Amino acid sequence: MPATAPFATSSPMWLEPGTKPWLAAYAPRILGEEELVAQAADDWCRLASAAPAAPQLGAIARHTLNITTRAHADQLPSSLAESARRALAEQAPGPEGYSVVRDQAGDLAVVGADGAGALYGTLRLLIGGPAAILAGGDAATGTPDLSLRMLDHWDNLVPHPIMGTVERGYAGDSVFFEDGGLAPDTDRIDDYALVLASLGINAVCLNNVNVHATEATLLTDRLGLVQAIADILRRRHITTFIAVDYAAPMTLGDLGTCDPLDARVRQWWRKTTNHVYATVPDLGGYVVKADSEGRPGPFDYGRDHADGANLLADALAPHGGVVMWRCFVYDHHQDWRDRSLDRARAAYDHFMPLDGRFAGNVLLQIKHGPLDFQVREPISPLLLGLRHTRAALELQIAQEYTGHAWDTYFLPTAWREVLDLDVAGDGGMDLGQDLKARTDSAVVAVAGVGRDWNWTGNTFSQANLYGYGRLAWDLHTGAERIAREWAAASFTGDEALHAALVRILLTSREAYENYTAPLGVGFMVTPGGHYGPNIDGYEYSPWGTYHFADRDGVGVDRTPSGSGYTEQYPPALAARYRSLEECPERLLLFFHHLRYDQVLPGSGVTLIQRIYDTHFEGVAQVRAMRRDWEAVREQVPEPIRTDIDRRWRAQERNAVEWRDQVCTYFLRHSGIPDAAGRMIYP
Amino acid sequence: MPATAPFATSSPMWLEPGTKPWLAAYAPRILGEEELVAQAADDWCRLASAAPAAPQLGAIARHTLNITTRAHADQLPSSLAESARRALAEQAPGPEGYSVVRDQAGDLAVVGADGAGALYGTLRLLIGGPAAILAGGDAATGTPDLSLRMLDHWDNLVPHPIMGTVERGYAGDSVFFEDGGLAPDTDRIDDYALVLASLGINAVCLNNVNVHATEATLLTDRLGLVQAIADILRRRHITTFIAVDYAAPMTLGDLGTCDPLDARVRQWWRKTTNHVYATVPDLGGYVVKADSEGRPGPFDYGRDHADGANLLADALAPHGGVVMWRCFVYDHHQDWRDRSLDRARAAYDHFMPLDGRFAGNVLLQIKHGPLDFQVREPISPLLLGLRHTRAALELQIAQEYTGHAWDTYFLPTAWREVLDLDVAGDGGMDLGQDLKARTDSAVVAVAGVGRDWNWTGNTFSQANLYGYGRLAWDLHTGAERIAREWAAASFTGDEALHAALVRILLTSREAYENYTAPLGVGFMVTPGGHYGPNIDGYEYSPWGTYHFADRDGVGVDRTPSGSGYTEQYPPALAARYRSLEECPERLLLFFHHLRYDQVLPGSGVTLIQRIYDTHFEGVAQVRAMRRDWEAVREQVPEPIRTDIDRRWRAQERNAVEWRDQVCTYFLRHSGIPDAAGRMIYP
Repeated sequence: MPATAPFATSSPMWLEPGTKPWLAAYAPRILGEEELVAQAADDWCRLASAAPAAPQLGAIARHTLNITTRAHADQLPSSLAESARRALAEQAPGPEGYSVVRDQAGDLAVVGADGAGALYGTLRLLIGGPAAILAGGDAATGTPDLSLRMLDHWDNLVPHPIMGTVERGYAGDSVFFEDGGLAPDTDRIDDYALVLASLGINAVCLNNVNVHATEATLLTDRLGLVQAIADILRRRHITTFIAVDYAAPMTLGDLGTCDPLDARVRQWWRKTTNHVYATVPDLGGYVVKADSEGRPGPFDYGRDHADGANLLADALAPHGGVVMWRCFVYDHHQDWRDRSLDRARAAYDHFMPLDGRFAGNVLLQIKHGPLDFQVREPISPLLLGLRHTRAALELQIAQEYTGHAWDTYFLPTAWREVLDLDVAGDGGMDLGQDLKARTDSAVVAVAGVGRDWNWTGNTFSQANLYGYGRLAWDLHTGAERIAREWAAASFTGDEALHAALVRILLTSREAYENYTAPLGVGFMVTPGGHYGPNIDGYEYSPWGTYHFADRDGVGVDRTPSGSGYTEQYPPALAARYRSLEECPERLLLFFHHLRYDQVLPGSGVTLIQRIYDTHFEGVAQVRAMRRDWEAVREQVPEPIRTDIDRRWRAQERNAVEWRDQVCTYFLRHSGIPDAAGRMIYP
Repeated sequence: MPATAPFATSSPMWLEPGTKPWLAAYAPRILGEEELVAQAADDWCRLASAAPAAPQLGAIARHTLNITTRAHADQLPSSLAESARRALAEQAPGPEGYSVVRDQAGDLAVVGADGAGALYGTLRLLIGGPAAILAGGDAATGTPDLSLRMLDHWDNLVPHPIMGTVERGYAGDSVFFEDGGLAPDTDRIDDYALVLASLGINAVCLNNVNVHATEATLLTDRLGLVQAIADILRRRHITTFIAVDYAAPMTLGDLGTCDPLDARVRQWWRKTTNHVYATVPDLGGYVVKADSEGRPGPFDYGRDHADGANLLADALAPHGGVVMWRCFVYDHHQDWRDRSLDRARAAYDHFMPLDGRFAGNVLLQIKHGPLDFQVREPISPLLLGLRHTRAALELQIAQEYTGHAWDTYFLPTAWREVLDLDVAGDGGMDLGQDLKARTDSAVVAVAGVGRDWNWTGNTFSQANLYGYGRLAWDLHTGAERIAREWAAASFTGDEALHAALVRILLTSREAYENYTAPLGVGFMVTPGGHYGPNIDGYEYSPWGTYHFADRDGVGVDRTPSGSGYTEQYPPALAARYRSLEECPERLLLFFHHLRYDQVLPGSGVTLIQRIYDTHFEGVAQVRAMRRDWEAVREQVPEPIRTDIDRRWRAQERNAVEWRDQVCTYFLRHSGIPDAAGRMIYP
């Protein structure tokens, strides 16, 4: 058993050994030579050694945990070999998958379809425990729905003057970088790899998609840094990506152009990429934000995004690398005066005409909604439209618009809605099924992880990272199940504690939605920082995110009488969103401009009353969550307890501020008082 | 004649030798030993040497310019001695004053009441030329209205992450500081001293009133830096001040308190100040921002501002130093919900009760209006109320709220209104007369100067620095006179050029006022940066600057039915501001909350129509100014010409943006269309 305990400087999160009595009850035994099999056993032992009662328990481990792969399953003890054979045959785990079997004596075998599967199966067993994993019988299995399950770190090598080392990060400095080089605590990077492997995440992009000058050199001068981190991540089957500057042939090379059709540019990328792969042979590929928010791109040369993406794909193809090409492309110098423009249309308008023109190793990386990770958006129609191009669904764990890790916000609730969406509107396939059915789709999330002791700023935000991993593996994992698993794995305590934590998580998104921008209209946040209310903050800005409130009404007409955005959807969905009666109430102001006195078909009250009601309800929900917490907080250890206490105080202040600003703003505009007579400041 | 030409790396502004044929026509001759007399002659010669035709003209200087002081006036040639004696007797220039006399042959004498007066008289003559200065006959005189005419630099030693090295500066980095030490180009500091002396400015505070950690050490570890700069400024009779951190006994010393009544704190300030004066014996004193916007102060110990100011006064008194104690004290955590609060009341409420309790070497430094350097504010009632305390009127040359040196804005127009205000409202004394009559008043302005080639960002902004100096010397200098002097001194060219420049300057304030926040309501600017419109930017903020627009009306009720702020004024002024009929229209929304359909007594149109009209008028004025410029721009040399071209483009964009956002905002609120049918976006 190795000497180094993991998580020496940080919270183990859901790997908390104290919640896992089974850790010391099983002695791992490895069959075969795979390094990942050995890693799995090693991680089990290291975590067992960190459990409070480990020395005693370790001495009396009653059971054996056999860890192996399909290739070596014949070496299993006879009590397990037959059931393992049967499980592999019947359950047929695919690449990275595993089967777990138990014999009558209670010994276990994790049999990976490959080494990665053995690692994932072992860590799944480690988190949940044999009783839960094998609740359905003496065999269980797991295979990921998608082969690429990725995290994008928006990390900078040198601190950005405003954003620091993690753009939109609320949990401290970069885990990877410091002062332009490697972060000194590389054990922590190893811990992080273990955290990610425990979720089955198998790819990480190290640096910010806004690639600044220093970060651009990861491709060239600082390639050694990529190598050093890739060497750590690889131990747990995690592939490394880097975000590259589209203009690199100009900024790093000495070409005067980055025209994707210029032969010298093509040559530059080939040569540079060959050099990259000579150093990091298993690099996953490149992530690119081009022609977006001031980043350079193919538009500068009158080319399109297929030209741009295929340029990099061509350089990566010989090495098996892929291009993650972001579709977050829109005009960020929009004129607020022109109400015919609609930023929501942009991704579809730009990329749909190119469907089929992208190389096979290009994935279009598409945010789940058409705008930018708001609390409530309809699904991006581009995700539904593309049929001849590989797609990656992009989510955001970093709580940019969802409370900055001050406000508790359980993201899986929202992601569930995305993945459960009936994609054709005909009661057929949901988005999760659709993604799985399509060729080599992927899922990506913006990480938001940092060097804070608890990794995520708010300890509740750990549940978002956990939930992302679980959903990335199995696109149909339920939000409540995620919450229960996370609470049970992270905290010792009685059922009241776990139930309270689950209730808080499951309430949190609705509460936050209630006290922020109403009914899907979005934004209304403080410009720049994106925390706290500023109702008109983006109303006259060039960013294209408007709500058009006046004395009569509010909301964005995206039906054919307005921007016509609804028509980007499949017909049944378009019809639903077009219709005031059928449009989900939570999305009404995203799709329609409504009068304040409009009676809403769903709730039967006027729009203005609905705005007031939801905002008072949101604050009430925060107070209820806080009371729920306070009833169980004594069971939670320090420093988590006190840290969460102060985050509730901040959240309640924020919720009250949102409620009061939104209600006053709309009272001042509409002149219509609250029917319930609550205090709305004039 | 010395070899070094001044202004080697910058614009000479109004000292431009090219506009001054008299420079080379006079050979200076000094009488007496005063260093300032020698400096005056030296500056004349150095500027003459920089004139394009200097070598030829210099060789044929036809006249002598005698420079001396009262003490050596008897050494003047007989042709001048008698008229000098008579001028000194009749005109009786006071300290720092001078008389200029001319004999029949055309030789001149500048006779200072002291060395400073000789310097000032010479430089006045240098700028304006003998013909203008002596336009009224063969003798002229000048004596400053106030003995302390100061500039506050808001300069940082190390760049602030957002503000850089000059807080609210729009003209490049600090002239004084770089990387925590002295700026390398000390010749430029010498040039700057010449610029200031040419205006009669005799005191400069080197550093930002928001004293950050590095800057605080000017008082101790970095005292050598103060000494180095003071040594340069002193050559032209400029006294150096520093801004100090009120909490210095804790942050620099090792005391656990800065309670002004604590004997150890008193002792610390005495000892520290003694050390300061041992190094810089003629330091002017300290500038202090305490209990304001997060700065520490006596409130932290339950003491008042008299306690705080007298603490420092006590330490400075033995050395002849003074305390400039800023009255910009207000609650910057105000609750927008509580409409009974009014930030405008703050300075008066805090300081009036203390009138008479301040030591004789304390000046209360009071911004001209009760808020913060807005385009239009009524005068601070504290300036009118204090009768037993020395006062310093604080102005701002830095264009924080007045266009950031992108938009042309001639500040003397606004300052004139301040100084011309009938202080009792009874047709008696104006503020200028009042300040001059009171004991040892002063005037201070926030400098805004930086290391840009033209010192002020926009070349037109040079006229603001010039105008400040002229007004500080003579509180009744007219705005048009300032504009004419500046244009003539700064640019060679024909009368059309000078007339156009003057027209632009004199129009600029009204234009800017027209297209920004309406009728004195103030703010509506982008939070933080303060450039460009954001109508609700501060509406729900804790900064206490609200306009309360709703669907019915806009404005702040500061009469007794509202915050009662009007009652801080002398009765006649209070009555005027209280009355909708008598209140100046440009201040209506500062004092009153009005319905959009209210007909304004002054212009006879409704409030909403007045808002629309002024905003369209503002843009039209910008376009007219730009046309005026374009007709004469060929006469202006590069790089000024092209630089001003681009500033007009920026200003026109800004004006259009302001107009459209303000008009749309109020159309959306009021629902009332423009009677003139102009395009207001819905």
